[in-house]
Amino acid sequence: MNPITVVVDGMGGDNAPRAIVRGAVKAAKANPVKIIIVGNEEAIQAELSRMKHPEGAIVVHAASQSITMDENPQEAISAKSDSSIVQAAQILSAGKADAMISAGSTGSVVMAAAKYIPRIYGVRRTAIATVYPTLNELRRDDYLSLMLDVGANVHCSSEELVQFALMGAAYVAEIRNVEEPRVALLNIGEEETKGGEKMKVAYQMLKRTPGINFIGNIEGKDLMRGISDVIVTEGFVGNTVIKTLEGAAKTVSHLGKVAFKTKLSWKIGLMMLSKGLQALKEVTDYSEYGGAPLLGFEKIVIIAHGRSNPKAISNAIKVACKCVRDDLAGHISNSIKNYEMDIAREFYPLTRESD
Amino acid sequence: MNPITVVVDGMGGDNAPRAIVRGAVKAAKANPVKIIIVGNEEAIQAELSRMKHPEGAIVVHAASQSITMDENPQEAISAKSDSSIVQAAQILSAGKADAMISAGSTGSVVMAAAKYIPRIYGVRRTAIATVYPTLNELRRDDYLSLMLDVGANVHCSSEELVQFALMGAAYVAEIRNVEEPRVALLNIGEEETKGGEKMKVAYQMLKRTPGINFIGNIEGKDLMRGISDVIVTEGFVGNTVIKTLEGAAKTVSHLGKVAFKTKLSWKIGLMMLSKGLQALKEVTDYSEYGGAPLLGFEKIVIIAHGRSNPKAISNAIKVACKCVRDDLAGHISNSIKNYEMDIAREFYPLTRESD
Repeated sequence: MNPITVVVDGMGGDNAPRAIVRGAVKAAKANPVKIIIVGNEEAIQAELSRMKHPEGAIVVHAASQSITMDENPQEAISAKSDSSIVQAAQILSAGKADAMISAGSTGSVVMAAAKYIPRIYGVRRTAIATVYPTLNELRRDDYLSLMLDVGANVHCSSEELVQFALMGAAYVAEIRNVEEPRVALLNIGEEETKGGEKMKVAYQMLKRTPGINFIGNIEGKDLMRGISDVIVTEGFVGNTVIKTLEGAAKTVSHLGKVAFKTKLSWKIGLMMLSKGLQALKEVTDYSEYGGAPLLGFEKIVIIAHGRSNPKAISNAIKVACKCVRDDLAGHISNSIKNYEMDIAREFYPLTRESD
Repeated sequence: MNPITVVVDGMGGDNAPRAIVRGAVKAAKANPVKIIIVGNEEAIQAELSRMKHPEGAIVVHAASQSITMDENPQEAISAKSDSSIVQAAQILSAGKADAMISAGSTGSVVMAAAKYIPRIYGVRRTAIATVYPTLNELRRDDYLSLMLDVGANVHCSSEELVQFALMGAAYVAEIRNVEEPRVALLNIGEEETKGGEKMKVAYQMLKRTPGINFIGNIEGKDLMRGISDVIVTEGFVGNTVIKTLEGAAKTVSHLGKVAFKTKLSWKIGLMMLSKGLQALKEVTDYSEYGGAPLLGFEKIVIIAHGRSNPKAISNAIKVACKCVRDDLAGHISNSIKNYEMDIAREFYPLTRESD
């Protein structure tokens, strides 16, 4: 069996290329994986030469340009054909790699994937999924919940929300090993009539879709309880909510920093509390989770956090390998296919009888 | 000068009528205000008879029905004409009171106000505003920010968002005494091109509207920093974000409770930290803030939290009196009128020249 090949954007994120190269070396040492690092060849080779790594596990693919966080993604992707993101996407598209990872501009990664990687047949929109820590009231081994979409789209239709549910459930079941993951719709009330027409229709569709363990609406106040494995929402809301949680976690950390400067009692208090507050603090600790998968493409694409350190990149590579090995794209494809057939059955029952 | 009259829904909230009556008595003792409590006359009089209060300051208006949190607001408002919410709204509408307060079902209060109280001329949609605590990076006397809409509407137009900005700024300037309040648009990025067509247009309109001190987009992660006095958003997003903050605050409290049961070091840590965590915890402490104003009606309507205690009701009455005394509705009316004239000037400059 050939090892899995992961193409990594060597120029993405605040600490590139150093953190990327170090993360790649870390991953190559721990797992049988082939890694292609794309970007400024000289800089990447210089970093590589400083570290031991398994023979032939890491190769460098030169790309003369890179895309910054400030650039307009659409313009950057079409203007910079030799950028590390575009080159990585093309390598993935050409079948020379099984998965792609970038800690660069989220918008540019989404645009590059949309341009070069085919969507899974039947998938109307792709979605960025992200995990966040919870109080885990369900007592799972895993205290994380998955939310999608958190920013690949601004808005979407009821049907697209149902597809997000299917893709999120497939990810949680296959990659996080949760059986029959509980799926909830983020809404402004628990009642099925809440949230306007789009949410009402999405609720009814989710309730009726076989293969989705739909538990109903979830409100913002219950997100951190960990009562649902998958939370489905539109990109605008998901992005805002995840950033709000991140801000709340930072507020706690900030109070901690203030404490360290001012009051001894707070300082001691925070030291004693450090484990208790971990759940909130870890919202910002992307390094543990291995990045946010971009779901709905035929190939695996993972967006790592812009502040990724070597551990985060290494974890992202590990998650990417698991997604390939467990055939996540195939599971999503089946799930979407079954869904489309169910819809066909519901709306064209006669067609079915003539089968 | 006649004292201000406030009509209070005696049957709304978890602790009605006891907490309502006690809050009314507390307010009547502290301020020259006339209070009409609406609801089950016997129960309210029984509570009243247990407490001393200024002669003639409190009267009871009998209403034989009440509306529960579970009822469909639209149906309840039209079916229960003798409910405490409907009766209170009618008393306000008839000019027998200057302001109304209810700790009952938010939806029902919004519906009753919409049915009986005229909107301020020019106001397209009313909005629920709520304050929340922040790290106050602007070093204001007041460490609260105001967010609207948090649930009177699900969605709204760009122009309605601009009106929310005007109403929120008027409230913060008049009632919270902040000069030239800073207004931000809640969005998924700081750039003015973010968030889809509606947000892009709203951004441009806010930038150009005289009388709004617009500081640009704000992301979820910066909400708790306290860098903006007014945050404008659609009801779905605002409701979800406020509830998410409430959930994060509860998570901190929950970790505290767990700590009390388990680890002594956590227990001591939390006791030492208690003031530092106050900022987060207080998100849920509505009793301090005196309720959420429903902005855009000709009369003052304040929605108190369902868990309101006497202090919360008393504070809501105090805020209501201030809104009446400072003529909040008049300020909002002027603000909206000026805005409409600016629009007229921009789109019909010829009309203006023929003035």
